[in-house]
Order: sequence, then structure tokens, then C-alpha cells
Amino acid sequence: MANKASKVSETVIRRLPIYHRYLTEIIDRDIERISSSELSKLTGFTASQIRQDLNNFGGFGQQGYGYNAVDLRNQIDKILGMDHTYKTIVVGAGSLGSAVAKYDDFRASGFKIEALFDTNDKLIGEKVDNVPILPYSEMKEYVKENNIDVGIITVPKQNAIDVIHTLIEAGIKGIWNFAPIDFHMPEDSDVIIENIRLNDSLLKLSYYLKEHFSEK
Amino acid sequence: MANKASKVSETVIRRLPIYHRYLTEIIDRDIERISSSELSKLTGFTASQIRQDLNNFGGFGQQGYGYNAVDLRNQIDKILGMDHTYKTIVVGAGSLGSAVAKYDDFRASGFKIEALFDTNDKLIGEKVDNVPILPYSEMKEYVKENNIDVGIITVPKQNAIDVIHTLIEAGIKGIWNFAPIDFHMPEDSDVIIENIRLNDSLLKLSYYLKEHFSEK
Repeated sequence: MANKASKVSETVIRRLPIYHRYLTEIIDRDIERISSSELSKLTGFTASQIRQDLNNFGGFGQQGYGYNAVDLRNQIDKILGMDHTYKTIVVGAGSLGSAVAKYDDFRASGFKIEALFDTNDKLIGEKVDNVPILPYSEMKEYVKENNIDVGIITVPKQNAIDVIHTLIEAGIKGIWNFAPIDFHMPEDSDVIIENIRLNDSLLKLSYYLKEHFSEK
Repeated sequence: MANKASKVSETVIRRLPIYHRYLTEIIDRDIERISSSELSKLTGFTASQIRQDLNNFGGFGQQGYGYNAVDLRNQIDKILGMDHTYKTIVVGAGSLGSAVAKYDDFRASGFKIEALFDTNDKLIGEKVDNVPILPYSEMKEYVKENNIDVGIITVPKQNAIDVIHTLIEAGIKGIWNFAPIDFHMPEDSDVIIENIRLNDSLLKLSYYLKEHFSEK
């Protein structure tokens, strides 16, 4: 992961969305403030770990009061760049691509889907939530001309590498990859790639289920 | 994660699907055998780490020959329980649920989708790849009567906790959860839950993009 782009260690960054998720749950339950030790109970991280993590960003807690849940989440929103908007395309307009394009949390996170791309003539011209599906052959030009920031990859693994290379050539800044491949970003590239490992997760589940069954 | 169900540490288990993925790439490229040091270059794990991991399962390498890629992957298939079949349902038949139900790698991994469930009357009676969408009100009985092993959760987060509780009451063995919640499995439960954290991944990408932009 391109954490060279970051001043803070990736392990801290990995925990921020977790804080964000719990804070959202807390806010949904109308709880106004929370201490690092309460956050510790929820997240399983130690209280000092949590204070340390948040100190990386200026530490917003107050002695004896703890953290104001809304303020802290807003701060984390900023830290996570959720106040930015990213022009985004989805490559692969099949069921996964369409599902990802409809994924509500995109809007909340500032990823604005501008178009989907596919090679399947049956899909081209269709729309997903009013976002058009365009021919893959036009993707590279589209990314250049529209200064697209992020490409989401939901194509089959045999096509994924080519798609990633094409997006990089077109000047993409970030990639959210759902294809079960490992793409090693060239050293000189500062494109950020984040992978969703559905298969790894599924195999892990399969392993524990097998253990579970074989114990019976 | 319910790694109490496992004899091997979770960190090792987490690496097995990664070996599996690289071995599949190697096999697809018609490469017959691979050494632990070649696997090390690919995966970024040290060669001794890799040998150690695989030794946990009886170590299939041969001095000076390395690993036969197909044999090793077959062994890992077995270790990961990919020779088992798991009766699976999808809860939430929206775009994500349908995409997951169509997800090809399920069949390969032995997760057989028996039914989808939803509360939306418009969806009930429809089919996804010939798998029926049934009323959510019937889910609990269906899981009991058909000895369903695995429930995949793609419902909105506000419903996810109830769905998980209902599945556990119905005797489910494993849960693949796509809802952005943290469910703390009761101590006495041996139900296995594996979470896909789309939001966490998205926020992580957002963070690195923001850093990236603010550097320019």
C-alpha cells in the first residue's frame, strides 16, 4: 500500500475507519461523549493505544471528559479525507460493478461515480442509478479528459492487470480493486491501490468452518 | 474471529489464501514448481516464514526441488476446506446480495447458495441465477429445516444485528457479513463470523488520496 504518501503509519490509518465506525454507532445511539477506555472496550484496542493514535492528529480528548463523539468523528472525517470529493469510475458493469456503483456509502465518503465501463455491448448504453455504462474502449480518453481520480475494478481477474495499467497510463490517482489479483505498483508510481479480498475472506471462513465441522 | 476453532494461529490462516492466490497465478502461467524463495519474492513473506507456515500442515516441499504448484494448491484447498460443500443463504437480495449470490468463486469454494431472503415484496418470488428470493419472515424456519451452514449478510446495518441473532438462534454455523457493523459473538457461541469491511477499505483509500492531493 502506498503509505509513502502518508505521514502516519499504516497501522494507525487502518484503525481510523474502525474508530469512525464505532463513533457512528455511538452517535446513532445518541451518546454524546466517550472516554478512551470506553472506546477501548468497544474496539479491543488499549486506551493508551487509542489516545496515542488520536494524538497523531492533534488529540481531541479532554481530561476527565473524554471525547465528544460528534466532534471526534468530524475530525476523523477530515483526517480520512471525507470532506473531499473524488471523481470515480467503475470498470466492469456486471452485478458486482453495479452493486458497487449503487453502494450508498460512496456518496457519504465523497466518491462520486461519473460512469461505468464495460466491453459487453448488451450493457453499453444502460444506466445504473442514472450513471451511464460506456464502452471500455473509451475509458482511457474519458479518464484523461474528465480528470477522473479513482477507478474501481470489478472485471474478471484475467482482465484486471490490463485495466489497471490502462488506468495508470491515463493518470488515475487511486484504484479500489475487487479483482482477486496482486498488482505490484511500480516503484516510481504514486498511484494508490486498495484491494478488497473477497476470496481470501471466503477461504478463511471455509477454513474455520472445516475445523468446526471436523471437531464435531 | 473464532480462531479457537482452529489449531493453527490466525496469522498463518490469513496467509494461506494468499499462497492459494499466488499458486493459482503460477499454475495459470503453466509453471510446474516453485521454491519457497520464489514464493517469498511473490508474496513478500520470508522464505523461512513460508516454509514454517506450510510445515504447520506437514510441509510438502522437497529439498532442491521446491513445491509442486498443483500439489501444494491441492493441499491448501484441503486445508482451507474447499473440498467441503456448505449450504449457504444470502440475507438481503438487493444489488449487493444479488452480486454476492452470483459471485463465481462461491462454487469453486464450495459455498452452495440455496436461497436469498428479503423483506421487499417486489423482490420475493424473483430468482437470482435460478436461486429463489424468499420472504425474510421464513428465513429462521428455512435455516433450521434445511440445515443451512452459512448465512451471508448484505442487509443495511440497522437490520444486520437482528439478522445475525436470528441466524444464530436458527443454528447457523458461519456468517459472512458485509454490513458495516461489529458484532461481538457471545463467548459461548462457536458460530464463525467473517467480516468484509468495504467502508473501512474505502475510508483508507480516501485517506491516502487526501494525503496524496495535499502533497501536490
